[in-house]
Amino acid sequence: MEKIAYVNGAFVTHSEAKVSVFDRGFLFADGIYEVAAVLDGKLIDSASHLARLERSVGEIKLRLPETLERIEAIQKELVARNNLVNGMVYLEVTRGADTGRDFAFPKADVKSTLVMFTSEKDIINAPSAKAGINVITVPDIRWERRDIKSVALLAQVLAKQAAAEAGAGEAWMLEDGKVTEGGSSSAFIVTQDDVIVTRQNGTEILPGCTRKAVVKLAEERQLRIEERAFTVAEALAAKEAFITSASVFVQGVVAVDGKQVGNGKVGPMTDRLREIYVEFAKATAV
Amino acid sequence: MEKIAYVNGAFVTHSEAKVSVFDRGFLFADGIYEVAAVLDGKLIDSASHLARLERSVGEIKLRLPETLERIEAIQKELVARNNLVNGMVYLEVTRGADTGRDFAFPKADVKSTLVMFTSEKDIINAPSAKAGINVITVPDIRWERRDIKSVALLAQVLAKQAAAEAGAGEAWMLEDGKVTEGGSSSAFIVTQDDVIVTRQNGTEILPGCTRKAVVKLAEERQLRIEERAFTVAEALAAKEAFITSASVFVQGVVAVDGKQVGNGKVGPMTDRLREIYVEFAKATAV
Repeated sequence: MEKIAYVNGAFVTHSEAKVSVFDRGFLFADGIYEVAAVLDGKLIDSASHLARLERSVGEIKLRLPETLERIEAIQKELVARNNLVNGMVYLEVTRGADTGRDFAFPKADVKSTLVMFTSEKDIINAPSAKAGINVITVPDIRWERRDIKSVALLAQVLAKQAAAEAGAGEAWMLEDGKVTEGGSSSAFIVTQDDVIVTRQNGTEILPGCTRKAVVKLAEERQLRIEERAFTVAEALAAKEAFITSASVFVQGVVAVDGKQVGNGKVGPMTDRLREIYVEFAKATAV
Repeated sequence: MEKIAYVNGAFVTHSEAKVSVFDRGFLFADGIYEVAAVLDGKLIDSASHLARLERSVGEIKLRLPETLERIEAIQKELVARNNLVNGMVYLEVTRGADTGRDFAFPKADVKSTLVMFTSEKDIINAPSAKAGINVITVPDIRWERRDIKSVALLAQVLAKQAAAEAGAGEAWMLEDGKVTEGGSSSAFIVTQDDVIVTRQNGTEILPGCTRKAVVKLAEERQLRIEERAFTVAEALAAKEAFITSASVFVQGVVAVDGKQVGNGKVGPMTDRLREIYVEFAKATAV
């Protein structure tokens, strides 16, 4: 059975799932997206993703075409229609399709576009969760509002393609000698003193939902967290390194630019945080 | 009669002109565009736009799905099918639609998407050509590869929306105290000594096709040109200011941030360069 997507009110097959060439997502990257994980048919950390969606669209004055409640209901229906057990729901909202192409916002009667589709992935049992991944570093050449989860992702595409070509699982982006974040994940290290370090939120990085949950869960367990930028040298001198995202949860990093981190294996703090996160995810799934 | 667009080999009505929601232009802004003017049914400065297209796709390793010759032939056919006399042809090429969403490039068998559509505009007789436009200034928050004409245009959308809200015709973007360029145009001033000043090409700005032609035409006429960055203060102290782009040609700027430039009217050098450009455009149209 072909998979089902949601496009502006209709549930259609993936091959029928289309948008106008005048859609501002296609013409201008004038859109916002979110990716939520699905475990056992339920949405993970949904309130956090919906809150970030609302913030992102607000920052670019894009009107959501549906309420957050309705959006979550559509996500759930899409998961059900696809019999999705484990994977992700992708959601994109754009400033709609006008009759022509003009940079400035269209008139109020142009309705925002809402698209969703699902993909299957066994995040819990992904082989890389045990083995860890290598990361490479690339210059962070993105725009200055990285806190907005926009679909203007060409810099990240190029970063992650460079990683793929190098046989790495992620690219860490560097600015002023510090790691900002990964192409599609937040970056963490664990120092020799067992301090968990991840960059503070700001316009320089996306406020990761999984990052936020992991920081909170660690704090609740009296683990030491420092929110500050770190260098590659600090990562290489660290006990452990890991990334977080909705599609990998907590994922060990065992090498940076070909140099081993810690003992070159996924570390115990990473494993523990992953366990804690999965427990939280399952307990709060909707 | 509804207008006709071109989508991946087919000529279809605008309402039928659609791309997959999996198109990487829609998901990642992983695409390049060009806009060429049309005068009397002919393409303006076409070789220059096609050369820039080839350069842009090369910079992001995107394969054109057709040769440049074939692309120009399709543009011409689209102009003919729409009986377009004066206006523009928009062209977008993206890294195609895969079956799912992955940042890294898709496999070689995913064909790039090619979309074109036209719009009508009497560029020669546009009222703003006589009256000039106001511009506002905004911070340049774009990524670091502005020389690539990608569809990751959200920063420009926000800049040009700010201009529209201020009743201005363009937004000049400022970086380190200097003007980089307009949201969709190149920026020029004419000093009190009749020196035409426009920023030198580099990764900080798009290499404008109309900019390039105007610089060359001015040089051929022994007009003095300096390619260097300028400040807003220099623009306000200048005799004249103007912008260039495929969709306005040469367009006088009579105020910056509400402050008059020169005598507040479109100046003689601007008028002369516009005339020279239009003459060139008509003489070299294909």
